[in-house]
Amino acid sequence: MLRINEDRLFGALGELAEIGAIEGGGCARLALTDEDKAGRDRVVGWMRALGLDVRVDAIGNVIGVRAGAENLAPVMTGSHIDTVRTGGRYDGNYGVLAGLEVVRALNAAKITTRRPIAVAFFTNEEGARFQPDMMGSLVYAGGLGLNEAYAANDKDGCSVGDELRRIGYLGPARPGALRPHAFVELHIEQGPILDEEQVRIGVVESVQGISWTEYTVTGVSNHAGTTPMRLRRDAGYLAASVNLFARKLAKEMGGDQVATIGALSLRPNLINVVPNRAVFTVDLRNTDEAKLKQAEARVTAHIDEVAKEERVDVEAKILARFEPVIFEAALVDRVERHAQALGLSTRRMPSGAGHDAQMMQRICPTAMIFVPSVAGLSHNVKEHTAAADLLAGAQVLANLMVELASEV
Amino acid sequence: MLRINEDRLFGALGELAEIGAIEGGGCARLALTDEDKAGRDRVVGWMRALGLDVRVDAIGNVIGVRAGAENLAPVMTGSHIDTVRTGGRYDGNYGVLAGLEVVRALNAAKITTRRPIAVAFFTNEEGARFQPDMMGSLVYAGGLGLNEAYAANDKDGCSVGDELRRIGYLGPARPGALRPHAFVELHIEQGPILDEEQVRIGVVESVQGISWTEYTVTGVSNHAGTTPMRLRRDAGYLAASVNLFARKLAKEMGGDQVATIGALSLRPNLINVVPNRAVFTVDLRNTDEAKLKQAEARVTAHIDEVAKEERVDVEAKILARFEPVIFEAALVDRVERHAQALGLSTRRMPSGAGHDAQMMQRICPTAMIFVPSVAGLSHNVKEHTAAADLLAGAQVLANLMVELASEV
Repeated sequence: MLRINEDRLFGALGELAEIGAIEGGGCARLALTDEDKAGRDRVVGWMRALGLDVRVDAIGNVIGVRAGAENLAPVMTGSHIDTVRTGGRYDGNYGVLAGLEVVRALNAAKITTRRPIAVAFFTNEEGARFQPDMMGSLVYAGGLGLNEAYAANDKDGCSVGDELRRIGYLGPARPGALRPHAFVELHIEQGPILDEEQVRIGVVESVQGISWTEYTVTGVSNHAGTTPMRLRRDAGYLAASVNLFARKLAKEMGGDQVATIGALSLRPNLINVVPNRAVFTVDLRNTDEAKLKQAEARVTAHIDEVAKEERVDVEAKILARFEPVIFEAALVDRVERHAQALGLSTRRMPSGAGHDAQMMQRICPTAMIFVPSVAGLSHNVKEHTAAADLLAGAQVLANLMVELASEV
Repeated sequence: MLRINEDRLFGALGELAEIGAIEGGGCARLALTDEDKAGRDRVVGWMRALGLDVRVDAIGNVIGVRAGAENLAPVMTGSHIDTVRTGGRYDGNYGVLAGLEVVRALNAAKITTRRPIAVAFFTNEEGARFQPDMMGSLVYAGGLGLNEAYAANDKDGCSVGDELRRIGYLGPARPGALRPHAFVELHIEQGPILDEEQVRIGVVESVQGISWTEYTVTGVSNHAGTTPMRLRRDAGYLAASVNLFARKLAKEMGGDQVATIGALSLRPNLINVVPNRAVFTVDLRNTDEAKLKQAEARVTAHIDEVAKEERVDVEAKILARFEPVIFEAALVDRVERHAQALGLSTRRMPSGAGHDAQMMQRICPTAMIFVPSVAGLSHNVKEHTAAADLLAGAQVLANLMVELASEV
């Protein structure tokens, strides 16, 4: 068996976490910032040192390819190295660096696989700076045009196209040019289920559908002391009512329905002025497309009702919308088999988070391997996974990739 | 009768509005900014040109004094010239410039009053940058110590003391050194009542008590897709629930109770992260101190209850707290008499907004004159008062001041 080296894997995770390090042990490497560029440069340096053929495509995805004995489609793994503003050190990075560790182990053992092995990191998976999230893999899979992706702006009006050029990652390769034999993504769960149930490996069968909408509410700003309640047209009130409604809706629907108001800003945002403008986001997720549509419809109906009562205008902008994804059943079975062969406990589960793998499923057989997140914390500097679990996940990945790379 | 000159008054209002002018016809002259300094310099220039003895005190209040025939306590008028971030051109400025127009009219008529006439503008009435609001008049009336006022910081950590020095308005005079015979403040209503009822002059009997509290909520940030609703500790959820509760509370209590959540910020403020921190303000007002206390207690109880359910921590910081103020009855009667003598319709009313006059009532007989605000808009670039109403209010002020300045 190809042995994953613990020290090399943890060393790489620690080194990458130094870039954009923030208080508490986390990372801030928002997509296409200087910090992201520094992280990319470091990982590309490692790819080159490992002898990989590094290809940067026109949306900034980076793929390092290790040649196989035969000229066949590669077995690909990978994830992302961008983070949210208060991210941890494992989300995304773990999958990319475990992939490089598989290459290191193959190099050390001087093994040439039949099929090439490819390790990728995709641009802007988080969507924390530019929408939609999973942008790089979405473009790779043909779900979003390059020009549309380039035109996405951050809050300061910087575009993806300009930022890719600025940091030197607008590459020559055509996104999707390399079509894998299979794609396997290793990732921390980012949720509490494996940790609560003390299970070592999550066998991911599907990804929740995601619906992201930004609402802009326009009311009338007025003096907080002299305006009777009945005359108010308070943009902030509508935003608050959606927050409470979303919570109630998710509880009523039950199952895996979740709803989050994560971003909200008021204008003029002063103690003694009724807000005339509120911009807020609603994040809805469900593994069942029909239920997700139902949740969207109920939020819309609620907003229409309150907007009418409060006499405010509301504009909705869809920032991202992905249907639930079902991974390749035969590949999912192989993840489970390899984990169990190593004596690891497993649990079949959906992913609550979006992942690049869900885009790759559009163009090749795809599966995911989850390892536990302590207390389910993620997008948080306290995000943590036990060393033994990091090692176990990487070993399952290595064994599955070697098997996939040996087949015709 | 001393005639107010319409052209001079509107000319001064227009000139002052050019400083810190913002789109839509409004002004942004937050206290102690460069724009505030420019506005102060202009008004001080006018005071000097009118021959007033200009005194700047240690909290930056500016008082221009026109000598009287006898060495008696002056009759004072005034207001403020700082604005909120999206302010109109009349709030505060109108009272100060109408006071200067009374002086201009006296100068033009070569009248020497028995008592001196003083026109003041007080520092940081709005409280939009530094808390508490009405800071200058509060210090003037002895309600706040200089050092405490100097230590107040804005959101960027700039202090009142440093900013006063920086703009050159930390003056030598002791706040409160000049104790008026009477203080009369002329102001736009900033509310809809006079406009709705088509009344020309508001005879202000009292000022609502004000309670401003800032709450800082600490929860846990976590992934919006993978964290089941039952495990969330969402700081933004508590803030939203207070918004809805405050609306419900004000409606239940009725009367003149108002409640506003004007400022709110979330952290990390990202679409796909449950907020771990929310900072928001609650503004409660009532003319009845007992009811205001009841409103405060109910908001506190609600917050305690939701904080427990949501397992978040909440810290409360009182930013301002003023009991309701009752103006000098005899002086209020005189406002009414002078307005009616001019054939103007009047209405007795409380003030829903805080004003410098409420602080001055602590040290001398005080009253206020209101003129209508079209549609009740204020703290808004669309704030407007009809020219005829601006003129009428200034004429009532002139007549009352001349009468007050003639008495022993």
